[in-house]
Amino acid sequence: MALIVQKYGGTSVGSIERIKNVARRIVATKRRGNQVVAVLSAMAGETDRLLALAEELEDDSGHINEREMDVLVSTGEQVSIALMSMAIGTMGEKACSFLGHQVQILTDDAYTQARIEQIDPERINEALTNGYIVVIAGFQGIDRSGNITTLGRGGSDTSAVAVATALQADLCEIYTDVDGIYTTDPNICHQARKLSRISYDEMLELSSQGAKVLQIRSVEFAKKYGIPLHVRSSFSDDEGTVVCQEDELMEKAVVSGVAANKNEAKITIHGIPDQPGIASAIFSSIADQGIVVDMIIQNISEEGLTDLTFTVPENDYQRSLSIIGEICRKIGGKTVLGDDKIAKVSIVGIGMRTHANVASRMFSALARENINIMMISTSEIKVSCVIAEKYTELAVRVLHEEFQLDKDPECKE
Amino acid sequence: MALIVQKYGGTSVGSIERIKNVARRIVATKRRGNQVVAVLSAMAGETDRLLALAEELEDDSGHINEREMDVLVSTGEQVSIALMSMAIGTMGEKACSFLGHQVQILTDDAYTQARIEQIDPERINEALTNGYIVVIAGFQGIDRSGNITTLGRGGSDTSAVAVATALQADLCEIYTDVDGIYTTDPNICHQARKLSRISYDEMLELSSQGAKVLQIRSVEFAKKYGIPLHVRSSFSDDEGTVVCQEDELMEKAVVSGVAANKNEAKITIHGIPDQPGIASAIFSSIADQGIVVDMIIQNISEEGLTDLTFTVPENDYQRSLSIIGEICRKIGGKTVLGDDKIAKVSIVGIGMRTHANVASRMFSALARENINIMMISTSEIKVSCVIAEKYTELAVRVLHEEFQLDKDPECKE
Repeated sequence: MALIVQKYGGTSVGSIERIKNVARRIVATKRRGNQVVAVLSAMAGETDRLLALAEELEDDSGHINEREMDVLVSTGEQVSIALMSMAIGTMGEKACSFLGHQVQILTDDAYTQARIEQIDPERINEALTNGYIVVIAGFQGIDRSGNITTLGRGGSDTSAVAVATALQADLCEIYTDVDGIYTTDPNICHQARKLSRISYDEMLELSSQGAKVLQIRSVEFAKKYGIPLHVRSSFSDDEGTVVCQEDELMEKAVVSGVAANKNEAKITIHGIPDQPGIASAIFSSIADQGIVVDMIIQNISEEGLTDLTFTVPENDYQRSLSIIGEICRKIGGKTVLGDDKIAKVSIVGIGMRTHANVASRMFSALARENINIMMISTSEIKVSCVIAEKYTELAVRVLHEEFQLDKDPECKE
Repeated sequence: MALIVQKYGGTSVGSIERIKNVARRIVATKRRGNQVVAVLSAMAGETDRLLALAEELEDDSGHINEREMDVLVSTGEQVSIALMSMAIGTMGEKACSFLGHQVQILTDDAYTQARIEQIDPERINEALTNGYIVVIAGFQGIDRSGNITTLGRGGSDTSAVAVATALQADLCEIYTDVDGIYTTDPNICHQARKLSRISYDEMLELSSQGAKVLQIRSVEFAKKYGIPLHVRSSFSDDEGTVVCQEDELMEKAVVSGVAANKNEAKITIHGIPDQPGIASAIFSSIADQGIVVDMIIQNISEEGLTDLTFTVPENDYQRSLSIIGEICRKIGGKTVLGDDKIAKVSIVGIGMRTHANVASRMFSALARENINIMMISTSEIKVSCVIAEKYTELAVRVLHEEFQLDKDPECKE
């Protein structure tokens, strides 16, 4: 008998018909002799409906009470788990729903983006032992004072992994509307190939480079506790992609995937005095506004002056520009330039660690298509290039072909 | 400084505009120097929307999991309190919402019709002391195991009274879509007059006879703990009706109001052997099915046989008929007759205790209009008559006129 945690996303529970479909899947898993815990998102569209209500109440400053926002949006998952438990009941199995306060999904108190600290497995285990299918609200928890918190968009993935960890589950299945992790976005590149396995580290890089399948935090959690994740579709019975530890991987691809992210913008400050403390002054004022800077490049100094370029999320572009404009005056910089028509394309693969020429192959491939590289950033298993936004799809296809990602690694020379 | 509990019903919070309107009212109450606790229902239509979702999941037997039903429908109030707290926040006052599990609104474990046992005032008092307006979800609580329970339709009234009791509030205002308690339904009788005061006991009788303004349980609660209820409209500033202890009443009307209820049906068993234990056999089998019997009449015995007539809610009529048919055969009764085209009209007033001729005036008034009385039932402060349904409105108007309910009692002789 295995203990299986299954997470179903909003599309999978988006209507009563789909809820029944998922209920049948859960019941079938149980009847194959397993204990099942289902973690659910809100029905597709529900969270947006609730956010639209709240938006009507925003004051002129656009400020909204984040504690109450969490009270509001957490109702979406509550509706899902109640309906799912009812649906399972009509199929002859016992089901019991649990909310954050009932199984003590403890988080910190960062409303709208809380992090799970602990889950009490006792009540879940008791229900499982008594033959129940347990249905848990994803995306939410409570802080130590009993306030409702939520984990940010995609947080149900993290809920599922945290539940799997607390229960020492044998498997954590993430059911979604795609059938696995692809070498790149199939909408951009028709040669995209579904991966059968991928390492936690590669998945983390792909997620942070723009692949939207899993919330980054859930992959971090799974990696930390060694929980294998099986990402698959709730609309088919096909095998999906297993995200697991590197040493369990049969193949160690040089490059596993190509990701692209158009939601960034870059800002350059020219002619900054090259003095200690300047970079800190710039980036601390940006960080104070809750803006997350991604890539940073500083050119070598010329005549005591330097240039600094960095990227921010496109949503924060205008706000960042005005902050930086002010700082530029203060520190005596020359000009501030910005560009929000950029994209970041990245190649990710654990094989890079042992293959020296991966980055240069990437640069050559882009050069062959006359795609200019504006910024470069590398990690141990990733190379990212910022290019003009209009070349995004072309760049993805070129890189996919260059690294032969359409072919199974075992068939490559 | 007074501590005021205000309850707002579903119509009062039925849209974002109405939520803002109520928020302004709450803020104004606070700025007049009071501490305010608001207890809210779900936005009008929301509970029905949720019930419709659940209905799609009913199995063939019509059975539904009541625990999960409460998890589902309790989200309605959660949405209201979050939005209201946000709305108050945009008006410059601090607000904090609380759910059943956060302020320990403890109930028994009778899902969908739970009764409040206890509320912990500590966290509410702490928030009030810190200058917050407190916004509490009505209609719901938790049982001792932390499961979500709900109090039945209209349960937010009871939530408000229970909160007022726990906090020893100075006043409990019930805001609704009518502007007070009327001598009868103004839709039936245009002479209906708003009462300025009414006793708990009269209100209890009126509620149980069909007046829908307050949940009966809330009046029982208010009576038990001596909390005056001020029933008024959230759409105007007019004074409404105060429901309070009898000894606080200036006027002790002979008759305070006329109520009518069309949702009953009557069943008669003819020719039952007049033996001990027969009535018990009949009514215990009805009660076992969860059917609540209202009036019961047994005629005197003739040649060892008797007739028994009783009323049940119209919804339970067909089910009751088939149960009674079976019992009739078992106990050797002659025939079972039923009629669901009946209505019960009632007059209510604490003055009846000291006025002997009230019932006979009622019977005469109905007789003058040739309205036949099928059944009669009385209590200390109420007389009810079952009549043919088609005479309901006529009977209400006749009785309203007979007891001069359109006139202020002080003007009557």
